[in-house]
Amino acid sequence: MRAAKYTGEGRIALDLEAAEVLPGPGEVQIEVAYSGICGTDLHVLHGDMDQRVQIPATLGHEMSGRICRIGQGVEGIEIGAPVTVMPLKWCGQCDTCRAGHQHICPQLQFIGIDSPGAMQSRWTVPASTVIPIPDHIGLREAALIEPLAVAVHDVSRSRLQAGETALIIGGGPIGQLIALVAQQTGADVILAEPDEGRRQFAAENGIHTVDPRSADLAAVLHERTRGVGADVVFEVAGLPMTALDAMQHARPRGRVVIVAIHPKPVPMDLHRMFWRELEVLGARVYERADFEKAVNLLSAGELPVHRLISDVVPLEKAQDAFVRLSSSQAMKVLVDVQSEGEPA
Amino acid sequence: MRAAKYTGEGRIALDLEAAEVLPGPGEVQIEVAYSGICGTDLHVLHGDMDQRVQIPATLGHEMSGRICRIGQGVEGIEIGAPVTVMPLKWCGQCDTCRAGHQHICPQLQFIGIDSPGAMQSRWTVPASTVIPIPDHIGLREAALIEPLAVAVHDVSRSRLQAGETALIIGGGPIGQLIALVAQQTGADVILAEPDEGRRQFAAENGIHTVDPRSADLAAVLHERTRGVGADVVFEVAGLPMTALDAMQHARPRGRVVIVAIHPKPVPMDLHRMFWRELEVLGARVYERADFEKAVNLLSAGELPVHRLISDVVPLEKAQDAFVRLSSSQAMKVLVDVQSEGEPA
Repeated sequence: MRAAKYTGEGRIALDLEAAEVLPGPGEVQIEVAYSGICGTDLHVLHGDMDQRVQIPATLGHEMSGRICRIGQGVEGIEIGAPVTVMPLKWCGQCDTCRAGHQHICPQLQFIGIDSPGAMQSRWTVPASTVIPIPDHIGLREAALIEPLAVAVHDVSRSRLQAGETALIIGGGPIGQLIALVAQQTGADVILAEPDEGRRQFAAENGIHTVDPRSADLAAVLHERTRGVGADVVFEVAGLPMTALDAMQHARPRGRVVIVAIHPKPVPMDLHRMFWRELEVLGARVYERADFEKAVNLLSAGELPVHRLISDVVPLEKAQDAFVRLSSSQAMKVLVDVQSEGEPA
Repeated sequence: MRAAKYTGEGRIALDLEAAEVLPGPGEVQIEVAYSGICGTDLHVLHGDMDQRVQIPATLGHEMSGRICRIGQGVEGIEIGAPVTVMPLKWCGQCDTCRAGHQHICPQLQFIGIDSPGAMQSRWTVPASTVIPIPDHIGLREAALIEPLAVAVHDVSRSRLQAGETALIIGGGPIGQLIALVAQQTGADVILAEPDEGRRQFAAENGIHTVDPRSADLAAVLHERTRGVGADVVFEVAGLPMTALDAMQHARPRGRVVIVAIHPKPVPMDLHRMFWRELEVLGARVYERADFEKAVNLLSAGELPVHRLISDVVPLEKAQDAFVRLSSSQAMKVLVDVQSEGEPA
C-alpha cells in the first residue's frame, strides 16, 4: 500500500510499498480518505521535532475514512462506517487520567507524531480512538473535525457565554475555527489578524476583523465593550508580543486562553493579572466531548468549516503541499490519500 | 488629635495637632486602637508611590478601634462597638461593580493610600466599610483581620479543597496567613521560604517548610504528591524567578495564584501552561465575604494569628517601626494609636 513519509531534512517521500499493519485485538483498520496538514506537521517537516518523531515517519492526524477491518473483541463498529479519529493515547492509570483529564496525561502519546499517522492507504488505530460520523457529512469536511474539536475545546475552556465579547488574536486555521465556534455560541467576536486574506476570510463568515498594524485594537475594543474590555481573549498567534498584549484587552475578571505554542518563556504582565484578577488558562488538544460537539456542529450544518479547505492534493504530491503550505497564508490543505480508481 | 504622617523622603512625622474630620452623612468616626504596617505602607515610605499618595499622608489600613461618632442616616452601628474597616471605595456604577466584583472596580480607591488612613486618633470612614467584630476578639488581634481577609480571598480564588496540596512560595506575613488558612481548609501545606526565622515561625504552626536554597523543592513536592505536583501554588514572593518557578510545581490542571506584586512583566512558561492546562489567577484584596470569614476564623479561635504580632509600638515611634520593619524579617508591627491613659 501507499504512504507519505517524512524522511528528514524537509522531505516527504512517497512509499509505494509501505508495510500494512493489520488490526490486533481492540484495534480497527481505516481506509483513509483525506488527511489534513496542520501546523505541527509543518514543524516536523522543518526538523523541529526530529527528536520526537521516528524517521521515516508517516504523519497525519486530521483525517477521515471508512472502517475496512475490525480486530478481535471490537464491538459497535461496522465495516464501511465513515469515521474520524481522536488521535490520543493516555496511560489511564495516573492521577490526571483518573481525574478525567486523560487528554493532558503526562504520558500522553499523540498518534501521527509519536506513532504512525493517517497519510497511508490503510491506518490501524485503537478502536477507542474512533469517532463515528454521520453519512451526510462529506469526508473532506470530516477531515476538519479534529481541528474543529481543538477550537471547541478552547472555547469550552474559556467558559464563553452568549452575549460576551471574544477577542481572537491570530487568524490562522485554529483562530478562524475558534471565531466560528465563538460566534455560534452567541458571542460578539473580534478577530485581530495582520494578513488581509485571512481577515477577508473571517469577514465573509460575518466576523468583525481588525488589522492590529493599522488600527488601534484597544480603541476598537473600548468602543465595542463600552470601555470594559473583552470577556475572553484567545492568544492564537504565538508571538511574545501578542501574549503580552492579550492581557491588556481582557476586562476585570476576564479570561485569557493560551492556545498557541510558545516554545520559550515570554514576559507576562502579572501586575495586570493581579490588578484585574485575570484568569489565564492553558488549553491543549481536546476531550471526547469536544469531538462529539464538533461532529454535531458539522452535522447540523451550522458552521461553514468547508470554506477552510484551500486545496486538495493527491498523496503523491504531499511534499509539494507541505512546502506550499509552509510559505503561504493558505488555510487548510487536504491530502487525498485514496488510490486512483478508489473513490471514497 | 494626633496622627503619624508620611511627609516624603522616607520620613513619618508625628503631628500632635492633626485636624479631625467629623463624620458626615453615611459616615462614622472610629477611635483607633491599633494600626498595622503592611508592605504597601513600606513602599509608600520608600517613595515608590509618591505619585499616588497626597503628602503629608496619614497611612494605615490594617486596624481596629471602637465607634466614637455616628453620622446622619447611619443605622445598625453603636457607639463603643469594636470594629475594623474594609478600606475600599468603589464607584458602584460600572460593569465590574454591577457584576459583583466591586473590589476590582477600575475606579477603586484604597482608603489609607488614596485617602487618609488609620494612624490617627479618630478616623472617619464610610459606614459601609465598617466590619463589626465580636467583643472577645482582642483589638490587637483584630488589627490583623485585614491581612487575614487578603489570605482568605487568595485561598478562595484558588478553590483549594480539603485533601489537596498547596505550595506557598514566600513566607512573609501574607504567605504565613495563606498557609494558616490553607491548613484550616484541610490542605497539605508546604511553605517555601529562604529565611530561617520565617520557616521556624511556620513550622511552629505545624506547616511543612522547605528552604528552596538548600533543598530541591521539586523533589520535595514529587515525594509528597506521588509525582503529581501541587494542586495549588501561591506566588507570594514577588520575584521573577519565583513566578517562573511557580508554574513548574503545579500538577496538570493545577491553579497558580499570583498574590505578589510584580511591577514589571516577568517571563512565564506559557508552554507549560498549555501542556498541563494550568490556570493562573490574579488575586487582589478581598470581598466582604472574605472579611466576614476572617472575623469568623478569629472568633472561633481557629488560627494562631496573634503569633504574627512581632511588636507593638506607640504612635510617636511609628517612624522607628517603619524603618525597623523595612530592614528586618519581623512579621507584623502594630502601631498603638491610643493616647496615653486612653486604654482601648
